[in-house]
Amino acid sequence: MREVAILGIGQTPVDEAWDKSVREIAGEAVFAALLDAQRERVDGLFVGNMLSGIISKQEHLGALVADWVGLRAIEAFKVEAACGSGAAAMRLAIMAVASGEMDSALAMGVEKMTENKGTETTAALATAADADYEAEQGLSFVAINALIMQRYLHEYGWKHTDFAPFSINAHANAVHNPFARLRDPISEKDYQRAKMIAAPINLMDASPIGDGAAAAVIVPADSLPELVYGRPRIRIAGSATATDSLAVHDRRDALWLTAAELSARKAYQQAGVSPADIDFFELHDAFSIMAALSLEACGFAERGQGPRLGLEGVIRPDGRLPIATRGGLKARGHPVGATGMYQIVEAVQQLRGEAGETQVQDARIGMAQNIGGSGATIITHILRRG
Amino acid sequence: MREVAILGIGQTPVDEAWDKSVREIAGEAVFAALLDAQRERVDGLFVGNMLSGIISKQEHLGALVADWVGLRAIEAFKVEAACGSGAAAMRLAIMAVASGEMDSALAMGVEKMTENKGTETTAALATAADADYEAEQGLSFVAINALIMQRYLHEYGWKHTDFAPFSINAHANAVHNPFARLRDPISEKDYQRAKMIAAPINLMDASPIGDGAAAAVIVPADSLPELVYGRPRIRIAGSATATDSLAVHDRRDALWLTAAELSARKAYQQAGVSPADIDFFELHDAFSIMAALSLEACGFAERGQGPRLGLEGVIRPDGRLPIATRGGLKARGHPVGATGMYQIVEAVQQLRGEAGETQVQDARIGMAQNIGGSGATIITHILRRG
Repeated sequence: MREVAILGIGQTPVDEAWDKSVREIAGEAVFAALLDAQRERVDGLFVGNMLSGIISKQEHLGALVADWVGLRAIEAFKVEAACGSGAAAMRLAIMAVASGEMDSALAMGVEKMTENKGTETTAALATAADADYEAEQGLSFVAINALIMQRYLHEYGWKHTDFAPFSINAHANAVHNPFARLRDPISEKDYQRAKMIAAPINLMDASPIGDGAAAAVIVPADSLPELVYGRPRIRIAGSATATDSLAVHDRRDALWLTAAELSARKAYQQAGVSPADIDFFELHDAFSIMAALSLEACGFAERGQGPRLGLEGVIRPDGRLPIATRGGLKARGHPVGATGMYQIVEAVQQLRGEAGETQVQDARIGMAQNIGGSGATIITHILRRG
Repeated sequence: MREVAILGIGQTPVDEAWDKSVREIAGEAVFAALLDAQRERVDGLFVGNMLSGIISKQEHLGALVADWVGLRAIEAFKVEAACGSGAAAMRLAIMAVASGEMDSALAMGVEKMTENKGTETTAALATAADADYEAEQGLSFVAINALIMQRYLHEYGWKHTDFAPFSINAHANAVHNPFARLRDPISEKDYQRAKMIAAPINLMDASPIGDGAAAAVIVPADSLPELVYGRPRIRIAGSATATDSLAVHDRRDALWLTAAELSARKAYQQAGVSPADIDFFELHDAFSIMAALSLEACGFAERGQGPRLGLEGVIRPDGRLPIATRGGLKARGHPVGATGMYQIVEAVQQLRGEAGETQVQDARIGMAQNIGGSGATIITHILRRG
């Protein structure tokens, strides 16, 4: 299997794009990525998307986007793994190029989800959970996460406000990201006073949905010099997926992301690194509780000690393990099927040294982790500069 | 890239399975395939599905099915390419094993679509077409195919009844397939008297929808001897996808399946064969006009001459190029996201010599072609015995 690298990246601002159809949003990210890669064509296209069939009444996004961006005839598929669809597209593009089936591929994620009534979107998002045993019982996605967070607070003795640093850090970083949805900093008081959604999750624990797309051009690593167009080459050092039950109640431990642990462990092994070698971590902070659970499952914090990393400042851009460096899901926004590709794009920005005010100093190895559902599909990528 | 082979196959009867959820239908096919392969585990799972999110309110089928069949933790994704989703899963499983990322993978397709009101299913199927420029105008999927067939009759001077042999052959073959949805033979009179749906397409030109799943276990070819469990090894000799515009009006020629031509040509080249070498062809006869267009685009008939192969008996099991040997979409049934995998399963049956009364004599090389939309995604596989 040959090693692969990321030659170009592109993204659209996460926003409410009522004037654009799903293909137009996708096209903007693809054109930006091709321009960045200085390529006009690729051999294949993998589109991560979750909700287009339900919300835009448009399936078949592989061929649709390929045609729209002027690449009619190339091989193209849509892949879906709920909110993990973006990184799923990345996984498949990596396999396609690694296998030799393709010499270049576009991995992208796109989602358009703000045009409908909120209740419709809530119902659409519930399709990520177990329809027969969770959604059918009236559990929305935020409710599932609220149950997990409530149990976590009870089990480990944290106060709700101990989660504030995750939200404050994400918002502070998004201020400097022109593609972020929420660019206002928030204070601890803002966090405490935020409107309750599903106790104990308040508005500042939850990420905003949005419309957006992000894309990356994947090529064989040995086809590139270490410096490409004056920028460091970015290689995929690790790439792995693990799954778990959709329903939280089917897991042995509702407070442990087994699929995060398994996929991270495999990715560390592939990259020949340990958690201590990771310079920054773009994690899936769809809810603040998920940030804590990811940090624990990936070996950055002891079980039940995730919030400590926030309280001790470890997660800030100048800390030992910066997270959500461009705003994370919490403030960059969470266009569900696109999120995993935003994480990849942001990791590349950091490794190239293009992250501006929130640049992690001398970032050499970055990790991105995308979660589908409440932890049923978890995909981990480790990227390396040089 | 290493060559891959199919070790095991499984399928469920295409039917109205109101008593089973989508995961249960999927599980039946997976268990059958694992049993046939004499394996308990695989490294990965690719689920082709189009409509589960819309009809069953259940996305995230990769992790869901993996968990249901006792393979929790393995890498698993859903892939979608409209009615081409089944073969899309096959493509990705092939790439995953060929790349070395996995040493074994399950490719499967599943669809559950009979429980809803017919109008809901018609609307759901229209998401395969261009939502903004076709479906929005009120064009249903059968209407799109009716426009194509009407133009074909006009352009090439055929009568509607000239398409009867496609339907008669499919029904005659399905009589002997225990997994087929419609197992009654039909006569030319039945064809002529069938109820009109969207002129000139009548009920006998159209395939029935259904609930069903089909699966195959993919492994490296060199891991198997030429005789496995007393059955011939089945290798993937060719595998290719091409795309086209979703909207028919965006194509240069509404009567030519460019993506069929391109993907078939690539598959022939990979396999080192020409159309004359193909012993049978499991084609995508969702509508009889599609059978004619596929035969032409793949080089089995001259442009505009597809119906001749039916009229001359070429397509029957004892003809020069048997098609729809187990009933095809027309009579085995068309559970949309599963269809591509049914074709693969049926091709393996033929190559193993397990096709019973419709066995093609000394079948060595078989082709399967799965179409998404009205020709926007077309995936061609060539399978070889030995």
